[in-house]
Amino acid sequence: MSLPIARVHVGPRMSGIAIYNATVYLAGQVPLNNPEAGIAEQTREVLGEVERLLRDAGSDNSRILQCQIFLRDITDIGAMNVVWDAWVLAGHTPPRATVQAALADPRWRIEVLVTAALG
Amino acid sequence: MSLPIARVHVGPRMSGIAIYNATVYLAGQVPLNNPEAGIAEQTREVLGEVERLLRDAGSDNSRILQCQIFLRDITDIGAMNVVWDAWVLAGHTPPRATVQAALADPRWRIEVLVTAALG
Amino acid sequence: MSLPIARVHVGPRMSGIAIYNATVYLAGQVPLNNPEAGIAEQTREVLGEVERLLRDAGSDNSRILQCQIFLRDITDIGAMNVVWDAWVLAGHTPPRATVQAALADPRWRIEVLVTAALG
Repeated sequence: MSLPIARVHVGPRMSGIAIYNATVYLAGQVPLNNPEAGIAEQTREVLGEVERLLRDAGSDNSRILQCQIFLRDITDIGAMNVVWDAWVLAGHTPPRATVQAALADPRWRIEVLVTAALG
Repeated sequence: MSLPIARVHVGPRMSGIAIYNATVYLAGQVPLNNPEAGIAEQTREVLGEVERLLRDAGSDNSRILQCQIFLRDITDIGAMNVVWDAWVLAGHTPPRATVQAALADPRWRIEVLVTAALG
Repeated sequence: MSLPIARVHVGPRMSGIAIYNATVYLAGQVPLNNPEAGIAEQTREVLGEVERLLRDAGSDNSRILQCQIFLRDITDIGAMNVVWDAWVLAGHTPPRATVQAALADPRWRIEVLVTAALG
């Protein structure tokens, strides 16, 4: 007997969300709306998108279990952290790993991949 | 009382599969058989290997929860997506993140890391 | 009714551990104490830190479900594997993926991201 998977924002290439066994898996979020912006604005967009998807999934940003951050330029980490630190909720900060990686659009400076607990 | 872990294709360095709490964790799959091939053929091999491992685990490619794709050259993403789009199942596409990263063998152009639901 | 999340080593930016639904999520571990060391010593430190966190979480290194390794220089993989192979437990080796990525401190040669089963 298999547990059901709920997929949300289902596209032909990927889904934005998969929910399974009380856990929420998101697609990597990228700054689609502000691809020309600096790291602070791109980070704000991406974390806002994570927050919106978590809400769509019935979770929220106090429930993140693991977060991977990919930066085009690792030297952006300080400016990214300023936005991150203001976004995370005290007492509910998630395990995180941040590494450098070039992204699909050369203008994107950040991609964020999140796994979270159902709310 | 701890839940059991089932490991499959257990080697001295890593296992191909770990199954725990109704979730399937795969090792990163690389184009062992076609290291000299182009991105399309390497992608076909790797996704075929993912499919085989998911079947070995009692899952299948309609049950993928999260997929990370590492490309040696991010500019291969278009050609990779052609193979990917033909492989994923409509209505069951997984959350995905794709970034650039050099891989253990300089000839490998793609590595794919999958987490899935037990079938 | 939502399942509880336990966070351990909670900082203002991230937590070292999140435990949820019998699964343990760790933060990416880096060689904080030996940033100037070679890959072997950095790997030993990082895997030791993973082991300590797993113990803090009520798990251990026989219970790892998935391990991502990021190397600053992918050519370090052979020397890293020597330390890794001595560290993993026969019959309990985890699924693993290793890719190259620059890390937050340019001296760090390795970052390890682990998901594990509660003990």
